[in-house]
Amino acid sequence: MTKERAYFEAVTLKEHGRWCPNNVPEVFHFDRTMSLIAMRYLEPPHIILRKGLIAGVEYPLLAEHISDYMANTLFYTSLIYRSTTEHKKAVAEFCGNVELCRLTEQVVFSDPYKVSEYNHWTSPYLDEDAEAVRNDDGLKVEIAELKSKFCERSQALIHGDLHTGSVMVTHDSTQVIDPEFAFYGPMGFDIGAFLGNLILAYFAQDGHAVGENDRKNYKEWILKTIEDTWNLFRKKFTALWDKHKDGSGEAYLPAIYNNPELQLLVQKKYFEDLLHDTVGFGSAKMIRRIVGVAHVEDLESIADPSKRATCEKRALCLAKMLLKERRKFHDISEIVSAVRNVQ
Amino acid sequence: MTKERAYFEAVTLKEHGRWCPNNVPEVFHFDRTMSLIAMRYLEPPHIILRKGLIAGVEYPLLAEHISDYMANTLFYTSLIYRSTTEHKKAVAEFCGNVELCRLTEQVVFSDPYKVSEYNHWTSPYLDEDAEAVRNDDGLKVEIAELKSKFCERSQALIHGDLHTGSVMVTHDSTQVIDPEFAFYGPMGFDIGAFLGNLILAYFAQDGHAVGENDRKNYKEWILKTIEDTWNLFRKKFTALWDKHKDGSGEAYLPAIYNNPELQLLVQKKYFEDLLHDTVGFGSAKMIRRIVGVAHVEDLESIADPSKRATCEKRALCLAKMLLKERRKFHDISEIVSAVRNVQ
Repeated sequence: MTKERAYFEAVTLKEHGRWCPNNVPEVFHFDRTMSLIAMRYLEPPHIILRKGLIAGVEYPLLAEHISDYMANTLFYTSLIYRSTTEHKKAVAEFCGNVELCRLTEQVVFSDPYKVSEYNHWTSPYLDEDAEAVRNDDGLKVEIAELKSKFCERSQALIHGDLHTGSVMVTHDSTQVIDPEFAFYGPMGFDIGAFLGNLILAYFAQDGHAVGENDRKNYKEWILKTIEDTWNLFRKKFTALWDKHKDGSGEAYLPAIYNNPELQLLVQKKYFEDLLHDTVGFGSAKMIRRIVGVAHVEDLESIADPSKRATCEKRALCLAKMLLKERRKFHDISEIVSAVRNVQ
Repeated sequence: MTKERAYFEAVTLKEHGRWCPNNVPEVFHFDRTMSLIAMRYLEPPHIILRKGLIAGVEYPLLAEHISDYMANTLFYTSLIYRSTTEHKKAVAEFCGNVELCRLTEQVVFSDPYKVSEYNHWTSPYLDEDAEAVRNDDGLKVEIAELKSKFCERSQALIHGDLHTGSVMVTHDSTQVIDPEFAFYGPMGFDIGAFLGNLILAYFAQDGHAVGENDRKNYKEWILKTIEDTWNLFRKKFTALWDKHKDGSGEAYLPAIYNNPELQLLVQKKYFEDLLHDTVGFGSAKMIRRIVGVAHVEDLESIADPSKRATCEKRALCLAKMLLKERRKFHDISEIVSAVRNVQ
């Protein structure tokens, strides 16, 4: 890690921890000169969520916890809660985390759509699929829009890399770690990263099924977790919004928006736009994990390449459709149906 | 002016002047301690464009010049030309111009939509119209989206106050002044400010018509200037894009987008989105000049309040419709038709 990475990681752990202390490990001390973070040790049986998903372990509180994390960290660092003055000051500071933003731009929004020495995939099974991604003009038009949103929209202090490898869990604890990619970006990038990685975990299950353990129930649990995460996030974010609607947030001044009917209208539009961002970014994250540089263990750990390729093709097919058609979806249940309907 | 205003004005004059020296007055010296800008004196017969529009003077090169200014300043400070590293550094610096951003937020996106001691309008003629703006939920939903874009989207270094009072003209010179509101924001805010103020000038003409000088031809010249400005802007911005398509701009990497068919597709989408932003911001600027704190001389100089109110009602009616329906328009000629069709 460069020194800057450690700095932005520490600042974000503290800022996110301030708003969601139950799901962010506490920072005891940060020494900028030494780039040293002293933080809570996440004791056993905490494991990386991705490992749990591969093992087929259900975490009954996961949706509850991660929606707490998303709702609190995103709401309190957005202009719905904050003043412009606070916001611009924070945005300016995080512009300094440019190296890691550049890395994300490259691996998520660029490499999968061009010939790159870093790209790889399950060959030869996915050779044509990888080429199809590189030749899909409709997909490239959409990824350009998402990339510009990623680079230009300072909506909230996002984690920036919220996949299932950045979450540690036990049966009753959920801890979000490794926010070194954090900056002021679009909220949908965080929510999409998490949900997109759950969808990858879902498609990987058929590769992990052995004998009687067909993972059918587990796949249903994943789908339920996807739906619950979004719905709980929306509910909690809305509750925070309602709670602070008379506060000093810049985006929706009480003198203009404090009227129940209008509040509903505004929130409906807000979450519809956010769902489209979430689905777009989530799909981009799925695509890059199948034909880009860094893959996910959920799929990589499927030893039989033909079986792995089948899982990957399903995920890729869904992600391409969702990325292009995302504006046609209005509810998370429609997304879950689309996942379920992939053959 | 506070000291910060002078600093951001000087930096922007220099940066915009670098990319469009013919339409930005040269800065000879800036002293930050003294907040002193030594710049080119815009000699007579340069006058403020707004004064010329009120007097009914045609400027045959206006669309050509202002489209040069917009295309160059916006293109070269965007991620289509720049790297992420340069962009984030510049964005961070301009986050410091927060006081003037807050002022814009208040007067453009807030005050007209609530009861405010600063608001005024041609009373009693527009009393109901002003109230209707404050009670229009559909309008408030849309203005919220535009406000969030203004606060969150760092698309390019925009002038931030590009109305017809920020432009000095002669028959063959066009100079853009007073960029103290500059920051990294949405391009459509600049283009919309200029076009929206031309539309206000158009509707004010009936109030300035006397005797045989019915201003009919002049109104046509204004409409032509609106259409030409957008079309020339689009043409020149596209030419810059094509010229630099193999450069180091971050948004559209050549390895992905360097294919003529895709390039056309991407640009079509880009300008369609930008037109919607332009129309939205332009409409917001019109509304605020009729029922907000600061009005425009085009309308204020119409002495007869009943005549002035008639002009204002037409402009307001159009602006409300455009703001709400902007996504239905695909071409500047459709906007011009909508202006022409107002009764």
